[in-house]
Amino acid sequence: MSVLGVVRVITSDDPAFVGAHGRWIEQRYGLRTRSACIPGQQYGVHDDESFARAVPKIVKVAEELAAEGASCVLISCAADPALAETRAAVPIPVVGAGSSGAATALALGGRVGVLGLNDEAPEAVRAVLGDRLAASLRPEGVRRTTDLLEPGAADRSVAAARRLVEAGAEAVLFACTGLTTIGLAPRITKELGVPAVDAVLAAGLMASYAMHDKERAVNI
Amino acid sequence: MSVLGVVRVITSDDPAFVGAHGRWIEQRYGLRTRSACIPGQQYGVHDDESFARAVPKIVKVAEELAAEGASCVLISCAADPALAETRAAVPIPVVGAGSSGAATALALGGRVGVLGLNDEAPEAVRAVLGDRLAASLRPEGVRRTTDLLEPGAADRSVAAARRLVEAGAEAVLFACTGLTTIGLAPRITKELGVPAVDAVLAAGLMASYAMHDKERAVNI
Repeated sequence: MSVLGVVRVITSDDPAFVGAHGRWIEQRYGLRTRSACIPGQQYGVHDDESFARAVPKIVKVAEELAAEGASCVLISCAADPALAETRAAVPIPVVGAGSSGAATALALGGRVGVLGLNDEAPEAVRAVLGDRLAASLRPEGVRRTTDLLEPGAADRSVAAARRLVEAGAEAVLFACTGLTTIGLAPRITKELGVPAVDAVLAAGLMASYAMHDKERAVNI
Repeated sequence: MSVLGVVRVITSDDPAFVGAHGRWIEQRYGLRTRSACIPGQQYGVHDDESFARAVPKIVKVAEELAAEGASCVLISCAADPALAETRAAVPIPVVGAGSSGAATALALGGRVGVLGLNDEAPEAVRAVLGDRLAASLRPEGVRRTTDLLEPGAADRSVAAARRLVEAGAEAVLFACTGLTTIGLAPRITKELGVPAVDAVLAAGLMASYAMHDKERAVNI
């Protein structure tokens, strides 16, 4: 069975933390995953400087995962850092959480509200959503993905999602994978009555499509 | 287990033909499906007139599938006829093959060539692809989905896909579900070396996402 390489765009020496996104993808889509994180960025990617600094590191980790036999690479960050560079560097399909989440939201219909680390949605998300973007914002007190692990952050995130719905959003797209980490999607659906699109799980969805076709083509 | 309602936008009294798309979705995603077709359109949807005529029929079939307990509806036509009207009419998620296929192609990256029943891609597909659309065309001799069942149609479809790749397409999106019916995707991937996005299977992918979240929200 082929393996999906998951690049975590945040540094940690805790294997359970590094492997969390991969485990959720395994549980939901029945894929095998192998996760690895970039070095030297304990707060992840949260602004232009940290984005730029991450790009060569992501390419390097993706190349290592491909060399170890991964048949697809998933960059698990909603800003899609290094997506084009990684596609140019490895000979296998590469998906990003931002573009995958935005594409999934497009297919599910309606106008999309984006909840993330900045009041403006990441460029990778805006480029795909186009005029289907209803509004975007960040939860109060949240600037970095690690802020979502603080007490009360989940409640503040739901409150922010409520403001997106009030601004016309018919679905809420998570543009920070920390919202996946805290498992916010079911609360949004239950409390606000709109679908929540989890960027990490959407990227797993797209990876499952790419990997299935790849396996099928090989087996002909 | 919940059921995906599949609306076939072509008339047939052959249950195996009507159920074909649903069966492929069941096999690939492990969903249960129930298929139904619209009346009085033995050549499906292939121009503005046949599109317009299909709209109220699709809404009616979708309403019936929803009333019978479907938890999501899939309109299995790459032109997405009646997508907005059906979303307004039923209280469950509705996906269309055109927008789902285009969204999946966006997430997988690169410029997209569209193979369908017309030299111009359907509006539902163009609206999602935007400037990622590389080129679009129809296989020689193919005007209606039923033409794809004729001898030589698969070879002519591969030849058309080759022209799309020569025009800059890095992936080929099927904008006619007849290309699903003849199982063309593996040939494209094998002979042309680019991913093929099958609109029906992409819609099944999006439906699987929507149905999973719905079930999860109910179970909280």
